[in-house]
Amino acid sequence: MKQSVTEHQSPHLDLTAEATSIIYEGKSEFQDIVIADTPEFGRLLVLDGVFQTSDKEEFMYHESIVHIPLFLHPSPKHVLIIGGGDGGSAREAVRHEAVESVTMVDIDGQVIELSKQYFPQISKAIREQHPKLTVRVGDGIAFMREAKNAYDVIIVDCSDPVGPGEGLFTHEFYQDTYNALKEDGLFVQQTESPFMHRKVVHDIFVNVQDIFPIARLYTAFIPIYPTGMHCFTMGTKKYDPLIWTANRKRTFPTKYYNEGIQRSAFVLPNFVKDILYGEKDR
Amino acid sequence: MKQSVTEHQSPHLDLTAEATSIIYEGKSEFQDIVIADTPEFGRLLVLDGVFQTSDKEEFMYHESIVHIPLFLHPSPKHVLIIGGGDGGSAREAVRHEAVESVTMVDIDGQVIELSKQYFPQISKAIREQHPKLTVRVGDGIAFMREAKNAYDVIIVDCSDPVGPGEGLFTHEFYQDTYNALKEDGLFVQQTESPFMHRKVVHDIFVNVQDIFPIARLYTAFIPIYPTGMHCFTMGTKKYDPLIWTANRKRTFPTKYYNEGIQRSAFVLPNFVKDILYGEKDR
Repeated sequence: MKQSVTEHQSPHLDLTAEATSIIYEGKSEFQDIVIADTPEFGRLLVLDGVFQTSDKEEFMYHESIVHIPLFLHPSPKHVLIIGGGDGGSAREAVRHEAVESVTMVDIDGQVIELSKQYFPQISKAIREQHPKLTVRVGDGIAFMREAKNAYDVIIVDCSDPVGPGEGLFTHEFYQDTYNALKEDGLFVQQTESPFMHRKVVHDIFVNVQDIFPIARLYTAFIPIYPTGMHCFTMGTKKYDPLIWTANRKRTFPTKYYNEGIQRSAFVLPNFVKDILYGEKDR
Repeated sequence: MKQSVTEHQSPHLDLTAEATSIIYEGKSEFQDIVIADTPEFGRLLVLDGVFQTSDKEEFMYHESIVHIPLFLHPSPKHVLIIGGGDGGSAREAVRHEAVESVTMVDIDGQVIELSKQYFPQISKAIREQHPKLTVRVGDGIAFMREAKNAYDVIIVDCSDPVGPGEGLFTHEFYQDTYNALKEDGLFVQQTESPFMHRKVVHDIFVNVQDIFPIARLYTAFIPIYPTGMHCFTMGTKKYDPLIWTANRKRTFPTKYYNEGIQRSAFVLPNFVKDILYGEKDR
């Protein structure tokens, strides 16, 4: 490899992708930004040294974080996305016929602008100013604190719990999220690798469980994230993903998601159950 | 990282694990062998530069390749393991009360000896000369050619389809496997990453489908394998994993496997279905 980008996935593990070219390298008000073309993953977005999304496998993440919560809700009219500056989650959310409005709040306007320029497929809904979509540049934590009883589904599509995303993993934030949801609302957040980040996954789950009547975790394969095993934590006021039945038809094609995945994503290996519920003889 | 081991997961992607020490470095008749102690995965076995198994996450692989086929079969008395020299698959197979004999055939006796010495937990059944277990050093392809109507379950726990494992991925080998199985037998093989090795996964599936009345694919999270998304191909003469119902009680604890995983592992993302069955609008 002549040129490459490396993520230090942990202090003891590096993932290095060959780069045929570095498309952009700069620094926003909030983070370092690198965009590289890689033979393995296509165009790759790297924020503060962490691989965020790529053209070839972004569908696995975006379909998982959007379609699972949206299809769990029988009538997800108003959707809030915190983070998600690349636009992939917004793109998936507006595809739902039931969705009337999608509000996206990302703190880093430069990520949004760069995505519009360099990731045309991922940022499609932003670029085309989709009529359902409102994009705001601002602090998601402050935004959430103000919102009351307003959203059916909230998607926290954030970076890791260090750096600008840190405040999105606190008990207070989850309480604000609860208050921002309607009485039958639900939220989801990307919450790292259950294999590598056991304490993070456990602590978030305990916080969410403390506030929401139903807390659940689901997993997805995400090739560019540490260990490839990623999880999402869900807090829900009414609808339980463990007793989901299809309540409306999916009217668009998908590459990762399907109705089997809607159920199977919540089936957890024993060691993951142990992280959430404590170790037992299984 | 002062010292490390790197797998070239593809020509364009490297995974590098810090090593606190290199425990062993040598060459058998068949392959290069490295054993390293890594903070991330514990002790790690590397064959021909490919991360094979590690103390901290081996349970995800070994439970997936063993318990899913064994619990699919209502009465798996006689089990054959091709490869699996580290002993992890044998260790899991002998735990089943229904299993009366496990025959393990690995071509590389040095891997077996090194595992006994350096991976005491993984090689437990070999080290303790478990009464159900017979270990043979020899050519699995030749062994399979001779076996007729002898096994209930065959587990092909092999390395990748380059190097010594190459002959384990041919139409002829799958035909010999079919003949080695009893009339209601089934087999499973590790078959790489559906994200990274699409053609390999497709070609194997087509071959297995050509010979067995039922061909299925299932997935598992394996942190040290490329993309973390790994798949296993199954050929079965009678029992279909898609209509599985628990036919006997699991009498031992597991860290990855459970009865939900037995079903959900076969629920495939759309892009994986497309690799197997051709692309459709999903």
